[in-house]
Amino acid sequence: MRLENKRVMVTQSDDYMGPAITSLFSTEGAQVTTREKPVPTGKAFSTWVREMPVYDVVVANLAHDPCSSAVDNIDNEDWQALFETLVHPLMHLVRHFAPKMAERGYGKIIAITSAAPLRGIPGSTAYCAARGAQNAFIRATGLEFAARGVNINAVAQNYVSNPAYFPDDLVASERFQKHLARNVPIGRVAKDTESAELALFLASNASDFIVGQVVPFSGGWATNT
Amino acid sequence: MRLENKRVMVTQSDDYMGPAITSLFSTEGAQVTTREKPVPTGKAFSTWVREMPVYDVVVANLAHDPCSSAVDNIDNEDWQALFETLVHPLMHLVRHFAPKMAERGYGKIIAITSAAPLRGIPGSTAYCAARGAQNAFIRATGLEFAARGVNINAVAQNYVSNPAYFPDDLVASERFQKHLARNVPIGRVAKDTESAELALFLASNASDFIVGQVVPFSGGWATNT
Amino acid sequence: MRLENKRVMVTQSDDYMGPAITSLFSTEGAQVTTREKPVPTGKAFSTWVREMPVYDVVVANLAHDPCSSAVDNIDNEDWQALFETLVHPLMHLVRHFAPKMAERGYGKIIAITSAAPLRGIPGSTAYCAARGAQNAFIRATGLEFAARGVNINAVAQNYVSNPAYFPDDLVASERFQKHLARNVPIGRVAKDTESAELALFLASNASDFIVGQVVPFSGGWATNT
Amino acid sequence: MRLENKRVMVTQSDDYMGPAITSLFSTEGAQVTTREKPVPTGKAFSTWVREMPVYDVVVANLAHDPCSSAVDNIDNEDWQALFETLVHPLMHLVRHFAPKMAERGYGKIIAITSAAPLRGIPGSTAYCAARGAQNAFIRATGLEFAARGVNINAVAQNYVSNPAYFPDDLVASERFQKHLARNVPIGRVAKDTESAELALFLASNASDFIVGQVVPFSGGWATNT
Repeated sequence: MRLENKRVMVTQSDDYMGPAITSLFSTEGAQVTTREKPVPTGKAFSTWVREMPVYDVVVANLAHDPCSSAVDNIDNEDWQALFETLVHPLMHLVRHFAPKMAERGYGKIIAITSAAPLRGIPGSTAYCAARGAQNAFIRATGLEFAARGVNINAVAQNYVSNPAYFPDDLVASERFQKHLARNVPIGRVAKDTESAELALFLASNASDFIVGQVVPFSGGWATNT
Repeated sequence: MRLENKRVMVTQSDDYMGPAITSLFSTEGAQVTTREKPVPTGKAFSTWVREMPVYDVVVANLAHDPCSSAVDNIDNEDWQALFETLVHPLMHLVRHFAPKMAERGYGKIIAITSAAPLRGIPGSTAYCAARGAQNAFIRATGLEFAARGVNINAVAQNYVSNPAYFPDDLVASERFQKHLARNVPIGRVAKDTESAELALFLASNASDFIVGQVVPFSGGWATNT
Repeated sequence: MRLENKRVMVTQSDDYMGPAITSLFSTEGAQVTTREKPVPTGKAFSTWVREMPVYDVVVANLAHDPCSSAVDNIDNEDWQALFETLVHPLMHLVRHFAPKMAERGYGKIIAITSAAPLRGIPGSTAYCAARGAQNAFIRATGLEFAARGVNINAVAQNYVSNPAYFPDDLVASERFQKHLARNVPIGRVAKDTESAELALFLASNASDFIVGQVVPFSGGWATNT
Repeated sequence: MRLENKRVMVTQSDDYMGPAITSLFSTEGAQVTTREKPVPTGKAFSTWVREMPVYDVVVANLAHDPCSSAVDNIDNEDWQALFETLVHPLMHLVRHFAPKMAERGYGKIIAITSAAPLRGIPGSTAYCAARGAQNAFIRATGLEFAARGVNINAVAQNYVSNPAYFPDDLVASERFQKHLARNVPIGRVAKDTESAELALFLASNASDFIVGQVVPFSGGWATNT
């Protein structure tokens, strides 16, 4: 029961790592509040958070189709949507919650981001840019709040099973298995429950000394940050 | 004359590294075209580039006040302005020029970005996010165009003299000199001409094997990418 | 009981993170075997391991005085001792245990190394070199064994309380507290039990997807690997 | 003539990048002294440098067969030889030359190392460890001497043509070409003259602000440090 009585907010809870994290954190004793829809910005954000408690843990689980395409064909709307869905809401979440956590002297924010910008992926450059903005924001805000009892870190994942990015039929295909064998040292995709375990570690008191860290979680595909 | 007869575009040419790069590249034989104003996006960008040649070298020199503030006080308009000025125009520039350079089999894009996201700077987290998006985009697009004769790289600088970020009177102050002594191993700020020399190296044929690289340029303050 | 019935070897168990890891891992159900003395190399190593079981977890806890000095005064014997104590035994441990773990399809090796080489510390350059060799070896061997059920990772720590590097009286001094405030975002040193928690995470099944990772653990002092 | 009248020492000058650097630096006006044999350590080193001038530039070009093998089969003598040839002489060179350069307020040390430890290469883990020690030592000593007019940096290369590591017949093979296409974004190996151009940049006054930097040079294979 490593999150006993902790109040946790998980955003975009039906997507990406939302289901696995909600499930694991609940099992560990947390009272998990979820928001299924994407996190809004501006006034809609203010309205949403107005009556909200200061959660002990906020999981900034923000996801969007990677909108993969050659650079030549990056679509303006896709580009904007990536920043609207992944980047600006993350700022809103941290700007709202981190100072309140700091006042109280305790809090954890875990962003579920991506390892894509750690190595760079041709054909997914818009996605790399948006996820890179997230990772950089987490690092900098993690350092800003480090001395005030708030831990802000990121799980920078790739090759983690989930219906949107790595659905089972894709993973099962011969072509993808060859890709895995050549490019991912561990030779398999992770279950989403495995990623949730890293999020749990970062949400628990066991990681109180870890701040501003972007932790690669990609089976050895990326080990640098 | 390391850029003899090269056609070069330098954006936002009165700001940041624009003057130093324009001057040095001209001395090295380049025909430098400058755009003084910030680079627009959307239709205004299309209008701007409509009649434009395929430059041999594009210096994506994009700058904006860092809008430093505590996370609590990040201003929505500042945040948007940073992405509007630094991030979205970079995508437009690369999306327009890199494919045309690739068709021809030759070209260099050098983005003048920042080392800030490489370490993270409390109090400048919005700036870190925007510059982090730039660095991530350069890395990914650099790899995408690597095999087609186009070199896309970034100068990730900090502690380089320029009127906007490190004006002479700030640098001369006792407080800043103490800060330099404690935080910047080399103990001084660089002249903008020194940064221009790194841009020149990345613009010249001498660096044809370097792609997708974000080169820290900060007197030892940041050495990781 | 996250290490229930796991057989664990902790080396140099009276030094560095040895006591904290031995204690925590035992509490979590592990059967911990310790070796107090430094790990030997060559024939002495072979003799030592001859009758040894294949442990489920090996904690390569190797420590040596950092032998801090200006580069001018690096002592040949200090230099050799650092490599003899930190680097060569790590190779012996991984070479002996990882293949046996791989045969069985399961095992965890956690090296307790240092964040020093991640940033570089003037005045401790010999130590940085030796710890840098460790980190590089862990990264490469972690990838080599990734697909065979063996997880090899490192805790790259700095500013963790321990009698040798950060004894209590040093930490309590005004000078060191100023140093912490200026250089370590979190503003304090970690207890050794906190570092042991990260080692525990890396030793448990919760981190099966993490390989070849050098995890910075330094309160935000270093966040890059 | 970017090295006009500069006195340069190139070590192990018949190996690795020695011939290309000696040739290019001479063309640029340098007076290049070469040492063909591997750099010794201990007394033999002292004897060698006894009558030596303080060079303006020292190119620590140290090379050894990578002794590739599975971890299981790392040979004790190979392991020792890698550290004896690559690591310990680098310490001797920096310890001898950097302080003398610092007294005079000017000097450049460029180590030709490897990108291998930046990503980790299964099957070449001993080599990764030794090159990782080099890179860590360069970073730390680069910071130590930064404020005294001495620039210490490394070219961390991979996929650069040279008779020992990437001989022409290997490069020409279909298998290697496939490997290049899959793993090296730029899709080719560099000529040694291209690596020499980066060394030249780091040896010239154009890079006076760059210290403690390990510059990846691998056609996009590794872009992190």
